[in-house]
Amino acid sequence: MADELSINSKDTLEQLKIAMRQFAEERDWDQFHSPKNLTMALAGETAELLDCFRWVTEEASYQLDDKSAQAAKEELADVLLFTVRLADKLNIDLFAAAQEKMLKNADNYPVEQVKGKAKKYTEY
Amino acid sequence: MADELSINSKDTLEQLKIAMRQFAEERDWDQFHSPKNLTMALAGETAELLDCFRWVTEEASYQLDDKSAQAAKEELADVLLFTVRLADKLNIDLFAAAQEKMLKNADNYPVEQVKGKAKKYTEY
Amino acid sequence: MADELSINSKDTLEQLKIAMRQFAEERDWDQFHSPKNLTMALAGETAELLDCFRWVTEEASYQLDDKSAQAAKEELADVLLFTVRLADKLNIDLFAAAQEKMLKNADNYPVEQVKGKAKKYTEY
Amino acid sequence: MADELSINSKDTLEQLKIAMRQFAEERDWDQFHSPKNLTMALAGETAELLDCFRWVTEEASYQLDDKSAQAAKEELADVLLFTVRLADKLNIDLFAAAQEKMLKNADNYPVEQVKGKAKKYTEY
Repeated sequence: MADELSINSKDTLEQLKIAMRQFAEERDWDQFHSPKNLTMALAGETAELLDCFRWVTEEASYQLDDKSAQAAKEELADVLLFTVRLADKLNIDLFAAAQEKMLKNADNYPVEQVKGKAKKYTEY
Repeated sequence: MADELSINSKDTLEQLKIAMRQFAEERDWDQFHSPKNLTMALAGETAELLDCFRWVTEEASYQLDDKSAQAAKEELADVLLFTVRLADKLNIDLFAAAQEKMLKNADNYPVEQVKGKAKKYTEY
Repeated sequence: MADELSINSKDTLEQLKIAMRQFAEERDWDQFHSPKNLTMALAGETAELLDCFRWVTEEASYQLDDKSAQAAKEELADVLLFTVRLADKLNIDLFAAAQEKMLKNADNYPVEQVKGKAKKYTEY
Repeated sequence: MADELSINSKDTLEQLKIAMRQFAEERDWDQFHSPKNLTMALAGETAELLDCFRWVTEEASYQLDDKSAQAAKEELADVLLFTVRLADKLNIDLFAAAQEKMLKNADNYPVEQVKGKAKKYTEY
């Protein structure tokens, strides 16, 4: 059933969720995937992304060399996969949560007030 | 056009990508969204997730109190949104990248070898 | 005794270690300070530093406004305090470890080879 | 002069500051060491620490195997070195900042109120 869904659905986040479940089940890794541990894993992968960018300028960060670009792509993929997995373990509907958060962000950062400025909303 | 796509598509990652583009454009924030800066933002949001879990046990991390659960949901949403935005800025097809990475992970962690064990693949 | 040492010693890392021990003992917080948890706390504090710098340019990062400068100072202090505390819990002599690591770094990055270049040593 | 100081002083943080300055100067790395970049490097190193602990239990985190213990020691050393370097670049007296922060923490977490409890001070 999971496989049928993963084949038929166009919901990309849902597909990844199901694939990650299966991956963990096959390896008997559910025991390690507590939300606490997954959060650490997510933060670890995110930081590996930082390593791709720490010494490059902002300008250069748009045009990584091939090796760094490939590394960034893989790290970003890991970040997404752990995000999806953590949401699943916390029973969070990730897409709905992202949509809600965008509405909240739109409230916190009204266009007329923040246009062209980058501050935290508490500072406006 | 973007709006039509965002309404019609069931591709959740694609929808978020388009919504984030529009959000940044309306606020003239593209200038701040260099990959370098977005990576820092992503890592910052991820770490806020750590704060929800740092003093709880693994067991308790499955059952956060309401306030922490809401905080975790919002932080996780931010992580996803910045992941999507960064991928867009790096011209990475995020879903394809995640699928590729899962295949690579399956190679690195063959079921028969890693079942029930949690080590980095370089240690097997 | 701890207090005498903290007053007499000029070893600043040692002083902080003792002060942090006392702080935790008085609050009965040793039970929360497992190395695993402290690592999460350390990473959380470090990421708050990222928030001070995420949207500023490299040039501007040398001259933060007063509010950001104060925030950065406090976050950096927390990073140091958790680093000291974690080393204590892991029975690591932090100063000795830092000196050893500098020697290793000097080996990995010989002056004549890396002068003016920023790459990871594995790439030279 | 720097060397004399580093030999005579017992101030361990001061010694590391001077050693890091010299290390960067010899390699002409000051150009890369903007506060923004150093913050990314610091966060990157911190996250490598997370990798040592992500799948171990709290109990096991007190007794890492030799290989993980050595890795943790080296990562923690890097965290300290980048903390010291970043403070130097921001003209922060790190030891004074840490002492101030401890006083503030003592105010935020009065013994009688927080004893044996782990919450953020805003929640008490």
